[in-house]
Amino acid sequence: MNATAIELQAPTTRHDGTPDRSPPGSAAAVPVTIAHGDGIGPEIMDATLRVLAAAGARIAPETIDIGAKVYAAGHSSGIAEESWDSLRRTRVFLKAPITTPAGGGFKSLNVTVRKTLGLHANVRPCTSYAPFVPTRHPGMDVVIVRENEEDLYAGIEHRQTDEVYQCLKLITRPGCERIARHAFEYARSHGRRKVTCMVKDNIMKMTDGLFHAVFEEIGAEYPDIERERYIVDIGAARLATRPEQFDVIVTPNLYGDILSDIAAELAGSVGLAGSANVGEHVAMFEAIHGSAPDLAGRGVANPSGLLLSAVMMLVHIRQARVAGRIHNAWLRTLEDGIHTADIRGEHTRRTVGTDDFARAVIERLGESPRVLRPVTYRDPAPARLPNPAAGYRRRPAARKALVGVDVFVHDARTSPDLLAERLRRLRPEGLSLQMITNRGVKVWPGGLPETFCTDHWRCRFVAPAGATIGHDAIVELLSRLTRADVDVIKTETLCTFDGERGYALGQGQ
Amino acid sequence: MNATAIELQAPTTRHDGTPDRSPPGSAAAVPVTIAHGDGIGPEIMDATLRVLAAAGARIAPETIDIGAKVYAAGHSSGIAEESWDSLRRTRVFLKAPITTPAGGGFKSLNVTVRKTLGLHANVRPCTSYAPFVPTRHPGMDVVIVRENEEDLYAGIEHRQTDEVYQCLKLITRPGCERIARHAFEYARSHGRRKVTCMVKDNIMKMTDGLFHAVFEEIGAEYPDIERERYIVDIGAARLATRPEQFDVIVTPNLYGDILSDIAAELAGSVGLAGSANVGEHVAMFEAIHGSAPDLAGRGVANPSGLLLSAVMMLVHIRQARVAGRIHNAWLRTLEDGIHTADIRGEHTRRTVGTDDFARAVIERLGESPRVLRPVTYRDPAPARLPNPAAGYRRRPAARKALVGVDVFVHDARTSPDLLAERLRRLRPEGLSLQMITNRGVKVWPGGLPETFCTDHWRCRFVAPAGATIGHDAIVELLSRLTRADVDVIKTETLCTFDGERGYALGQGQ
Repeated sequence: MNATAIELQAPTTRHDGTPDRSPPGSAAAVPVTIAHGDGIGPEIMDATLRVLAAAGARIAPETIDIGAKVYAAGHSSGIAEESWDSLRRTRVFLKAPITTPAGGGFKSLNVTVRKTLGLHANVRPCTSYAPFVPTRHPGMDVVIVRENEEDLYAGIEHRQTDEVYQCLKLITRPGCERIARHAFEYARSHGRRKVTCMVKDNIMKMTDGLFHAVFEEIGAEYPDIERERYIVDIGAARLATRPEQFDVIVTPNLYGDILSDIAAELAGSVGLAGSANVGEHVAMFEAIHGSAPDLAGRGVANPSGLLLSAVMMLVHIRQARVAGRIHNAWLRTLEDGIHTADIRGEHTRRTVGTDDFARAVIERLGESPRVLRPVTYRDPAPARLPNPAAGYRRRPAARKALVGVDVFVHDARTSPDLLAERLRRLRPEGLSLQMITNRGVKVWPGGLPETFCTDHWRCRFVAPAGATIGHDAIVELLSRLTRADVDVIKTETLCTFDGERGYALGQGQ
Repeated sequence: MNATAIELQAPTTRHDGTPDRSPPGSAAAVPVTIAHGDGIGPEIMDATLRVLAAAGARIAPETIDIGAKVYAAGHSSGIAEESWDSLRRTRVFLKAPITTPAGGGFKSLNVTVRKTLGLHANVRPCTSYAPFVPTRHPGMDVVIVRENEEDLYAGIEHRQTDEVYQCLKLITRPGCERIARHAFEYARSHGRRKVTCMVKDNIMKMTDGLFHAVFEEIGAEYPDIERERYIVDIGAARLATRPEQFDVIVTPNLYGDILSDIAAELAGSVGLAGSANVGEHVAMFEAIHGSAPDLAGRGVANPSGLLLSAVMMLVHIRQARVAGRIHNAWLRTLEDGIHTADIRGEHTRRTVGTDDFARAVIERLGESPRVLRPVTYRDPAPARLPNPAAGYRRRPAARKALVGVDVFVHDARTSPDLLAERLRRLRPEGLSLQMITNRGVKVWPGGLPETFCTDHWRCRFVAPAGATIGHDAIVELLSRLTRADVDVIKTETLCTFDGERGYALGQGQ
């Protein structure tokens, strides 16, 4: 246990192991796991907890150790086994930044926590505070809601031939439903009016197409919220030049990674931004900045990123009124020109350290900003706690029919025509070779001389139109290819789902 | 043939079907295929060709029809069969914008040309012209070199289960070598000092890792050019806020799509920007703006985007001196405040139409800008024409050993433990079940209760450590799974290449 921990109130008794999240107005304290982290972490956590206590937050902190000393004690991911118990018990985690040791063998604590606990939604508000914090985009107030678990980040990569490497992009219906619902619920409970979906579904019609379709489907349940969609390249360009026109953006993992970094930089508030990583079971709240070891122990660090993360946490645990009190007092502090050194500028009246900044916020509790827009938070609907997206319900299975198979072959010495001739001799009854592509471009039949070919061939075998095959036909095909020494590196079955084609046609097909 | 075509000089006789690209100083004209396109296309093409003629460009245009009337004549990709002959003959294509008809059944002409002719490099200079054209980023002068054929854009997508859709990201060694070489050759022949590689190789260690490794490998052949690498999320944020610090950026297809749109918007010069799509056989040059049907026929369109594309073309066909003359006269025209309506602003002295703008550029041929930096172009080395990247040489094959297989299973009713038990009963001698993951997260052995599982399971079977298997072992495994009614949706073989693991470990493995 960390010596700087502040016990705000006694933990609530829990009978069934789930946290007690009492309605607003109740005095029951919500257990929250807290980690003070490394570098400036302990200082900004202390300041944050002081503000929370003064504002009347009803939380009962349980402190765990993470970061440098835990890595040093031999835990390769920076967190001890027993700390998971606390996270599973409280289901709410307020986390200060840590220092991941350099060198191999250490795993990112954030990735470990996110993957282990299934934190599927990353929420990052990017707000500018002009004129009090310099920015080129004064009116900016955008929230990026990023899918956090799937897409190319599932980490499934294979080297398939001498020349070709592959990574799988997986997009799933539950993943899409949850993140879309999260975005619309967030918009509703935060008084926002529009959710923009950013995808590349003009190219990736099936994966990004699913994300977009589910966005529309879930969004239709929120008629009070406007829906908008951008192709991500144009959307990113628009975000980079006119961020003021966006409100909430929901997007798959990779695009979200890029867009949220762009938005944070543009707002000029990387040091002020909080974030949430929310899952079905647990939610984690943290600043987006690092542990800044060079500033540690000097009492000068800006606690705002962690404080605004704590504000997000308070909304999550249904203490919206307290969250709003803190956020508005914080905005007023900025306006009053009481700034830590990192945001010192022409509007600074007094440069203060971590503690004095926290004190200034506490002094302003109950006040609202005069120039900046005050915030108002509503508690999320109780029925949807801990996370509205938890309610994914699997649909009845579609009628799935197997109609063919893509067989991928490694061969550096062949040509499209030679390969086709060979495969056609080998194919079993009931399957015909329909096409061969190389890097997605059709090279047989009717290939073009200009197409450069790698050693990686995708060979599509299909049943006659309207017919289906059994898996045994694929086994028989593979068996024949194996006997003929064809180097099969992968297969993808071709199926229809309720009669609809479940695979893309080849380019030029 | 389009009536507005201007025959600048008689075509050169070609004896072997390849274009005659004469050394600078020679009077021989280079055959170039030209398309006037739709909307404002014919006007800006006429203006461009007039400037080229006045500057002494030695080109012999062959005009083809593309776009609206070709679509209307029943060619679904907007280009007639016979036009390919011209492109294959001249190998150089200067293309005005076209209008792709709305509605289904029409294919993008650009995608068709790019894929058909294998135009693997997309080159897009994004320059700001402050104070003459308003921009927030006065010092910006960045060139995005984007790989154009592979990555997720190969279009290989499969719906695999009721819940899960997949798109393949393919990154290849020839693709990486060519685009890296293109970027460094471009930097060298355009007097640029730094090439920045943007990838996400902290996550995609194999695919983006290859791109990065090849970048370093090829870059080492260019000791005069500085190398730099950014993780793409931070790099995109940096580009969006401090584009001045970049020179040439080289990046895979998807990131390049996003980054080049950001850069063009930031520069404030979308209407002024040219681009090149360069392949082993053919290169295509075009403005990045569209056909602007609402402006057509009014003589007001800005020809700058197409003119700067033609400048890129002239460098490509080794008429660098002429290219520089035109580019510098164009910069001087901007400086002199002679602007078309689209860039009218406080530095405009005279607002002109398309023709007068071209005339103003022609009047300034031989002059250089005084405020903006003049350009100087060098002809690319003749030995490397038509494209230095054409020289990809396949390496000797690695020693490849098959050590296992990932089998992907569709099952909505199982659990990790049940599935593992079933698969372990079915596996043949010599293969053991090592792990099961769901969306990349390990769920067996030692899964966690928090991990949400879709109906899509990746089951890794491996040979004993140090041992290899034959393809027949995989066939036997699939045969047993099929007999037991396991719904196998795909396989990926696990191989080592020269003893090095050719597959990623599971998260949590």
